[in-house]
Amino acid sequence: MNFDNKGLIFIISGPAGSGKSTIVKKLLATGRFEFSVSATTRAPRPGEEDGVQYHFITHEKFDEMLKDDMFLEHAEYVGNCYGTPKKPVEDWVNAGKNVILEIEVIGALQVKEKKPEAIMIFITPPDAETLEARLRGRGTEDEAHLLGRLAKARREFESFDKYDYAVINEQESADKAAEVVLKILDAEEHRTSCNKTLFENFFN
Amino acid sequence: MNFDNKGLIFIISGPAGSGKSTIVKKLLATGRFEFSVSATTRAPRPGEEDGVQYHFITHEKFDEMLKDDMFLEHAEYVGNCYGTPKKPVEDWVNAGKNVILEIEVIGALQVKEKKPEAIMIFITPPDAETLEARLRGRGTEDEAHLLGRLAKARREFESFDKYDYAVINEQESADKAAEVVLKILDAEEHRTSCNKTLFENFFN
Repeated sequence: MNFDNKGLIFIISGPAGSGKSTIVKKLLATGRFEFSVSATTRAPRPGEEDGVQYHFITHEKFDEMLKDDMFLEHAEYVGNCYGTPKKPVEDWVNAGKNVILEIEVIGALQVKEKKPEAIMIFITPPDAETLEARLRGRGTEDEAHLLGRLAKARREFESFDKYDYAVINEQESADKAAEVVLKILDAEEHRTSCNKTLFENFFN
Repeated sequence: MNFDNKGLIFIISGPAGSGKSTIVKKLLATGRFEFSVSATTRAPRPGEEDGVQYHFITHEKFDEMLKDDMFLEHAEYVGNCYGTPKKPVEDWVNAGKNVILEIEVIGALQVKEKKPEAIMIFITPPDAETLEARLRGRGTEDEAHLLGRLAKARREFESFDKYDYAVINEQESADKAAEVVLKILDAEEHRTSCNKTLFENFFN
């Protein structure tokens, strides 16, 4: 139910090891969301396609877009720039389509400033032990990197109360967590703020 | 999910003919809610039991409770006083139990002032024609009463945007509408504001 026919913006964040990407894949598979593809100045890796994992753009193009206020959020990471283009998100919302932004906490807070109506969801493992076990389970990282990721998770948790909802990803399967996000979507679509048209037209 | 183990207050309002009482019955049957019983100074009708439909109290007792700020909301209607006792609601909330208040719009707004965390749900038929047909279908009212109820519904709709959620009750069965309210409950129980303990204990 969404009488005003405006899509909702869902921001999905969570520490590495929260399993947020798996949840996002499951959400996209329902057909109820579009996915916001970020722009980056870094070079594509083997197998990456322009417009799928990222929009690959030049530093000049990035700076130009930044100057023209065309990003909802942006960041620099080891010399490369990343940003969420504003226009596709706004076009989807205006066409009544819900959009998922899977972004880091710092970027999420930037988006919330520009789009206060965005729904912020924090995905987390049930506890710090599980988080660490999952990171170790990847087996791709040395101890220093692992500690770095844990420290980062700790910083991300500091913004916990800036998020609207917290969803625990208990299992690796992530089905239950995706289901919770869908319930949040159903609930949010019943907000009076999404259904002003119902009220305005009721007695007319 | 509700790590802070505080119950949620659900305020359910809607015009006569919205079918809100049927929905509330279905919600209570799930065992996920307690029901706030109002106090009134009016005499019990045949079949009514003290503490079930209402707490039947004297005018003196009512005035005393009012003076002691023991109501979340109160109103007078054709010479009788009605009020929602504060203590049972607060006790349930502190015991981690969700509470339903089925109350009129004016009372709902009073509760929201005292309990801003209360979740306000507006139940409505899909359109004014259905509303009128349902009121006529009752067959218990003359034209003047019916017009009075429609005028009241129109006034109640003026507070639509003070509510958090709108739920349309399409069918007389009300099952679908009750399901939506349960999704709203599930979503609300995942609010970061209900789960501060998760954050506080995560790395400890």
